Amino acid sequence: MVVSASEDPSNNDNAINALSGEEIHQLLKAREDRYDGVEVDVENMHNDVRRFASSLKASITHWARQGKKGVWIKVAKEQAKLVPVAIEEGFWYHHAEPSYVMLVLWIPKTPCTIPDNASHQVGIAAFVYNSKGEVLVVQEKCGPYKDSGLWKMPTGRIKQGEGIKEGAIREVREETGIDTEFIQVVGFRDGHNAPFGKSDLLFVCMLKPISFDIVIQDSEISAAKWMAVDEFAAQPKMQQSKLLKDIASVCVANMQGRCRGFSSIEIPSRKPSAFYCSAIDTE
Amino acid sequence: MVVSASEDPSNNDNAINALSGEEIHQLLKAREDRYDGVEVDVENMHNDVRRFASSLKASITHWARQGKKGVWIKVAKEQAKLVPVAIEEGFWYHHAEPSYVMLVLWIPKTPCTIPDNASHQVGIAAFVYNSKGEVLVVQEKCGPYKDSGLWKMPTGRIKQGEGIKEGAIREVREETGIDTEFIQVVGFRDGHNAPFGKSDLLFVCMLKPISFDIVIQDSEISAAKWMAVDEFAAQPKMQQSKLLKDIASVCVANMQGRCRGFSSIEIPSRKPSAFYCSAIDTE
Repeated sequence: MVVSASEDPSNNDNAINALSGEEIHQLLKAREDRYDGVEVDVENMHNDVRRFASSLKASITHWARQGKKGVWIKVAKEQAKLVPVAIEEGFWYHHAEPSYVMLVLWIPKTPCTIPDNASHQVGIAAFVYNSKGEVLVVQEKCGPYKDSGLWKMPTGRIKQGEGIKEGAIREVREETGIDTEFIQVVGFRDGHNAPFGKSDLLFVCMLKPISFDIVIQDSEISAAKWMAVDEFAAQPKMQQSKLLKDIASVCVANMQGRCRGFSSIEIPSRKPSAFYCSAIDTE
Repeated sequence: MVVSASEDPSNNDNAINALSGEEIHQLLKAREDRYDGVEVDVENMHNDVRRFASSLKASITHWARQGKKGVWIKVAKEQAKLVPVAIEEGFWYHHAEPSYVMLVLWIPKTPCTIPDNASHQVGIAAFVYNSKGEVLVVQEKCGPYKDSGLWKMPTGRIKQGEGIKEGAIREVREETGIDTEFIQVVGFRDGHNAPFGKSDLLFVCMLKPISFDIVIQDSEISAAKWMAVDEFAAQPKMQQSKLLKDIASVCVANMQGRCRGFSSIEIPSRKPSAFYCSAIDTE
């Protein structure tokens, strides 16, 4: 028996109860997407494993007949019992966020064109320099430079939905209490050693302080201070790493006007977006 | 009863069978991580929901007594029945890849410091120009510019673990059959409209062709050709979008030597990594 997909399953309790003993093949509610696929709505579904299993089986047959390709099911944390049911039907994991896991299935025999999930984490390193030629540096309580004696620039992760310059300003304020203005991105590292096989971009940002009293973040930072730029770049730990040395050279050169970075141009968009590039010479 | 965590549960069938009627509280095998947390090894565990539930409960109590903080459980697709059990014990989703879902729990009352999962997807737009002042352009079969008449640069997603310049070279070859050499990154867009709430970086790359016969990718591209740069930038669709116009201006200026981009410097690393920055003036 196939019940119309447009009916809300939660309103069909009586009809379904009347079927006791028969197999229940009610179709799952689903929205069509722009890529000949469907997105299943399990928001209002009963957390009933047996009913979900029979509906899912019937629905896959139905979608296959309709020529549908990708099937997406977003399963809330509270509905986790449905996860093994979907896996049993051939679904795999696409991505997960704290409150849900997204499962996908590719129905046709053609190569699967479902896009990969997010591939990168993004961080910033903030070079904050004042008019005395000093740079804002910190020592960290954990991480690879803990107890190394290295005075380093503040660094941190950009949050999902956050802009690079906004993230740089936030991290400097959190770690040191210093408010800053963004100037330029002078370089970025394209790396691939982030946790869980993810890739990792680090943007090196130049910033100008607009407040001067250091207040350190106790949980992460053991010390912070203003340090002469030459002294900063000459630290042995800085000179031993090609990457740290390159980053310091570019920052110092930019500060001295010997190296151009990318400035930020706002883009009209629903969420704050920007295009970063060099100034164009007009001669 | 608490059995040593170092014993392999799969070797304890006899001991466990002898306990029938008693509660089984065998501890889960786990490795300590660098952040006072533990990573649970469920690779060799029986896919036995009841046993997993009782072991997980006992293990959480044990880790709490030890002062452990974050608990990570990687559950393979084949073990999906264990997912609802962990959720029931307070775990949530951290991330998922096609073959597994990673679950996490934060034991102490202190704020959770478990890092977020990957936040960004990364793409490239490739400006490939030849010595005649022509740029390589395509028309797409799907996406936002389908049927728009716009001749656009080849674009595409960077894969997890892939470098930006390598990804740009690959995408151009896939879409047009043209082999290229990477020159510079001239800008990037920091956007936040990717699927599933993710952020989205697009790197604009300058490349030089090293082969010249166009062979289009039938599945994605409807046409490709070399187009005079002035004609490319003057397209009405290009002039109507501030972002597209800015990108075209920067590319043309870079091609004419009026705008500096970031070149790539290799970084010694386990996986191919690079630092991108401007050249430093030495005067």
